[in-house]
Amino acid sequence: MRYTNIFGNNTLRHNPGSSKSISFFLLQRGGYLRSLGSGLFAMMPMGNRVIDKIKNIIKDELENLGGQEVDLPIVVPLNLWKKTGRDKIIADEMISFSDRQGHEYVLSPSHIESMTQLARTSINSYRDFPRFVYQFKEKFRDEEKDKGGLYRAKEFTMNDAYSFHRSYSDLNNFFPKVFQAYLNIFEKCGVDIISAQSAVGTVSGDRAYEFLKECSWGDNIVISCPECGYKASADIAVGVKKQYTENPRLPKEVATPDCGTRDKLSKFLNIPLEKIGVTELYKTVDGFILVVCRGDYDVSIEKLSRLIGSAVIGLATKDEVEANDLAPGYIFPSNEKTGFPLVVDDSISGSDNLVVGSDRLGYHIKNVNFGIDFESKIVGDIVRIHSDDKCIYCRSSLEEKNTIEIGNIFKIGDFYSKAIGLSFTEENGEISYPYMGTYGIGLGRLLMGIVEANHDDKGIIWPKHLAPYNFFLMGIGKSFRVKNVVEELFEQLGSDVLFDDRHESIGVKFKDFELLGLPYRIVVSAKSLQEGKAEFYERKTGKTWDVPLELVNKTCTSLLEDSE
Amino acid sequence: MRYTNIFGNNTLRHNPGSSKSISFFLLQRGGYLRSLGSGLFAMMPMGNRVIDKIKNIIKDELENLGGQEVDLPIVVPLNLWKKTGRDKIIADEMISFSDRQGHEYVLSPSHIESMTQLARTSINSYRDFPRFVYQFKEKFRDEEKDKGGLYRAKEFTMNDAYSFHRSYSDLNNFFPKVFQAYLNIFEKCGVDIISAQSAVGTVSGDRAYEFLKECSWGDNIVISCPECGYKASADIAVGVKKQYTENPRLPKEVATPDCGTRDKLSKFLNIPLEKIGVTELYKTVDGFILVVCRGDYDVSIEKLSRLIGSAVIGLATKDEVEANDLAPGYIFPSNEKTGFPLVVDDSISGSDNLVVGSDRLGYHIKNVNFGIDFESKIVGDIVRIHSDDKCIYCRSSLEEKNTIEIGNIFKIGDFYSKAIGLSFTEENGEISYPYMGTYGIGLGRLLMGIVEANHDDKGIIWPKHLAPYNFFLMGIGKSFRVKNVVEELFEQLGSDVLFDDRHESIGVKFKDFELLGLPYRIVVSAKSLQEGKAEFYERKTGKTWDVPLELVNKTCTSLLEDSE
Repeated sequence: MRYTNIFGNNTLRHNPGSSKSISFFLLQRGGYLRSLGSGLFAMMPMGNRVIDKIKNIIKDELENLGGQEVDLPIVVPLNLWKKTGRDKIIADEMISFSDRQGHEYVLSPSHIESMTQLARTSINSYRDFPRFVYQFKEKFRDEEKDKGGLYRAKEFTMNDAYSFHRSYSDLNNFFPKVFQAYLNIFEKCGVDIISAQSAVGTVSGDRAYEFLKECSWGDNIVISCPECGYKASADIAVGVKKQYTENPRLPKEVATPDCGTRDKLSKFLNIPLEKIGVTELYKTVDGFILVVCRGDYDVSIEKLSRLIGSAVIGLATKDEVEANDLAPGYIFPSNEKTGFPLVVDDSISGSDNLVVGSDRLGYHIKNVNFGIDFESKIVGDIVRIHSDDKCIYCRSSLEEKNTIEIGNIFKIGDFYSKAIGLSFTEENGEISYPYMGTYGIGLGRLLMGIVEANHDDKGIIWPKHLAPYNFFLMGIGKSFRVKNVVEELFEQLGSDVLFDDRHESIGVKFKDFELLGLPYRIVVSAKSLQEGKAEFYERKTGKTWDVPLELVNKTCTSLLEDSE
Repeated sequence: MRYTNIFGNNTLRHNPGSSKSISFFLLQRGGYLRSLGSGLFAMMPMGNRVIDKIKNIIKDELENLGGQEVDLPIVVPLNLWKKTGRDKIIADEMISFSDRQGHEYVLSPSHIESMTQLARTSINSYRDFPRFVYQFKEKFRDEEKDKGGLYRAKEFTMNDAYSFHRSYSDLNNFFPKVFQAYLNIFEKCGVDIISAQSAVGTVSGDRAYEFLKECSWGDNIVISCPECGYKASADIAVGVKKQYTENPRLPKEVATPDCGTRDKLSKFLNIPLEKIGVTELYKTVDGFILVVCRGDYDVSIEKLSRLIGSAVIGLATKDEVEANDLAPGYIFPSNEKTGFPLVVDDSISGSDNLVVGSDRLGYHIKNVNFGIDFESKIVGDIVRIHSDDKCIYCRSSLEEKNTIEIGNIFKIGDFYSKAIGLSFTEENGEISYPYMGTYGIGLGRLLMGIVEANHDDKGIIWPKHLAPYNFFLMGIGKSFRVKNVVEELFEQLGSDVLFDDRHESIGVKFKDFELLGLPYRIVVSAKSLQEGKAEFYERKTGKTWDVPLELVNKTCTSLLEDSE
């Protein structure tokens, strides 16, 4: 391809807009990607070529496991989402609308419901297992924050895959195969991946793993143990919490004006956060609950949902707190007043003489002790672990890593098949519900991950076979001979060459080569022609060498045959 | 692929639901396609394989013309549509919504606006031409009628392509190349296509062609002249209208109770439709107009829009007619009362002594003559031609054909580049706006067209190279030897074979083979093995022949090498 013909050949010298993500900048600057609005991106021809190669890597791995490609619409009936109740759980992120007949639809933020519905048309018998289907399909999520660039794109393409099994043990046997296929995909893409157990979140199910790329600007925190290798998403990571025990004292009410938050209270009373017992009202799909945690920890919605066995939507609003006759910021840890379930983090018993709300605005109570002054039967681990807590397996200090999430896999069991009504007839005539797994890779995120893992301060360094073109060809000088030789080479080398035929200086072309990140540069100059040679340069290593013109084609072939 | 493993291997013996389209039935019955809601369809693995092959045919043709693949989001800012005004013109079909920041978006029914916007990021100079980009991308149109099956899918994938040119003559030179590429695509897909000049519709522009498949249930009418070959969409076709001249008589009011439609009036007065002058109020983007046509013709919105140079939205509602102080069904052809432009079809002067409205409910006026009793400066051809009108080129009788529209191409000139602000700097420093073409093929419609053109009463007959698999392999009988040989052949023949390994009768397998429509069936039986052979059967011709087992592989290869 001649570079003058490329739609998007206007590279940018400077980073566009503000973002923390170098990959997002480089992809835009190189003309791989352009923005079409907040959270909306268009893949340009060069970017599309990379995406095609990524898709082929994914296809190969999934089809090795029997994967079959399907294509579902992005718009699906809202009714399907009502069946699983997820219309309520992710209502904020989901766009829904009515057509002119008044039918209601959603712009799919996920395809689990519709894929389960589709499976109803073709899974009926115990003979119809296993099934493993996948697609590359747009999703739309109305992200809360507008500024995540490609990482938080509102519309994004996901490779989503779904497996259907006759039994839970069949799912258990299949699940690790997809786990391994994902590791293969990321390795082929040149991305060093951390896999960690993770929250099931709004997908629900009983086991999930994330595939993460370590990244300074990543907002996905992983807790890991450098000693024993334990790794889990901060949402669900477990650890040994610090204890602050004392002899219990007698409770005493104290005036605490304008101390509705733990930070204000800590400052006003001059006490550390771990001496505060924070009681808050949460909303779940089944109603309100009261939640108590120690001031030095934050509640994990994920852990809380798991402990109570019900999806937690989030903190109640101030209005909701008041409507339940509670004092915002001053709630006492008891359910006598409201009858709502009282859920207590197990760290609460590890700190005596806590300061808690008094149920009166402007007053707290000191020296309150769990088991003496309040109690609950629902006690468990419902908070996010700190990096300086200890590993429960080996007692080493835990560490935090910033990462971006590129893929995830979920064992979702039979929740969706039961909710949507996907059943099958067993050999003995009984009706059963299939067990499902769901698996997803964000293509835009994987693209970012690849660039995060493969760049320097001059630009991208595409792994071979992922580059839009593997060779960047250019001539130096205006001699007729150079031009002729370059044109001949361009013709010989075929479709894997980007020929920089622009009327630009050598400096500009060298800079753009580095920015674009193609693996090899081939330069023909009057000087190199004196020896009948072309100069090769490898972007990744900086290695330069001369190749006789008649061997250029062969050299290119053998460079691509080398393993990465 | 083993048929037992296919997601969607449950063929249907009967046509699902009601539709006039045999192709829609066959695709569903064969498990190529399934419905997920009104106007929403999912491509199953076998259908997806066909679509992939169609995409490759399209890609090849477009890339031959320098086409480069891009990928735009389906959700784009509403603001872009406001710039072209198309948000109003196709408001009924377009879904728009706001995100939680309050930004407004549309679910793209077309990508012309956003593609023009994207071009702004990379076309800046006269050097940046031509550019030809394409994508395969979902569109969403809230169709008025819910019952068109795949043909009127709400969400559908289109191959949409866009060309950008420095001058109008460059566009004119490029446009026929795409026309030819489209003909090539349809030929490679085995579809006999009619190309006809067509309305520019809501796309606007000055020249458009449709690519149509003749089809008994098609609602896209083409007027053609069997003598001289003239062909055009009924919306814009021209022809010589019939004349009904008499000596003018004097006007006279007559009571016509409950005659608000031309049919009632014709019946009540016992006069033919061509004796009625129908005056109706239409809405355009620039306001109301009054439109007069003869009772035996229907107004073509497209022709009307072109004549007045303003986009006509449609008939005014009864409320709007009354709000303008006009009598619904009884409007007199004059603009004295309203001041709205009066547009008259040229057939009106070809029929004397018309019956027209009196501007009073319940009364018409007889013997009204254009030029004597009413007049207007805006006279032209604004109606749909009848099949028994005459060809303007050769005076032969015109014919009507029912077709389905599969693709279309538009010269849209500089309307979009000016509206969206896509400009470039000429060599002399002046600012110009590119001329654009836009080109589209509906993939679902093409799939239907292929099946319409390639089926019999037993099922589909895929053209070679488009079939999901070219070979259907099966054994007859339970002998160990047959099973072994079939398994061996399956292994030899590779990925282009569908092996029917189900525990079904021969009859069921033969029926499904015919329904699925794979080009060749290979049967191994105890009998055929006696001679060391397998039996080949060609779906298209019904030809049967035996092939020695050791030559089966070679035979398959050579069958695919034969030209279609």
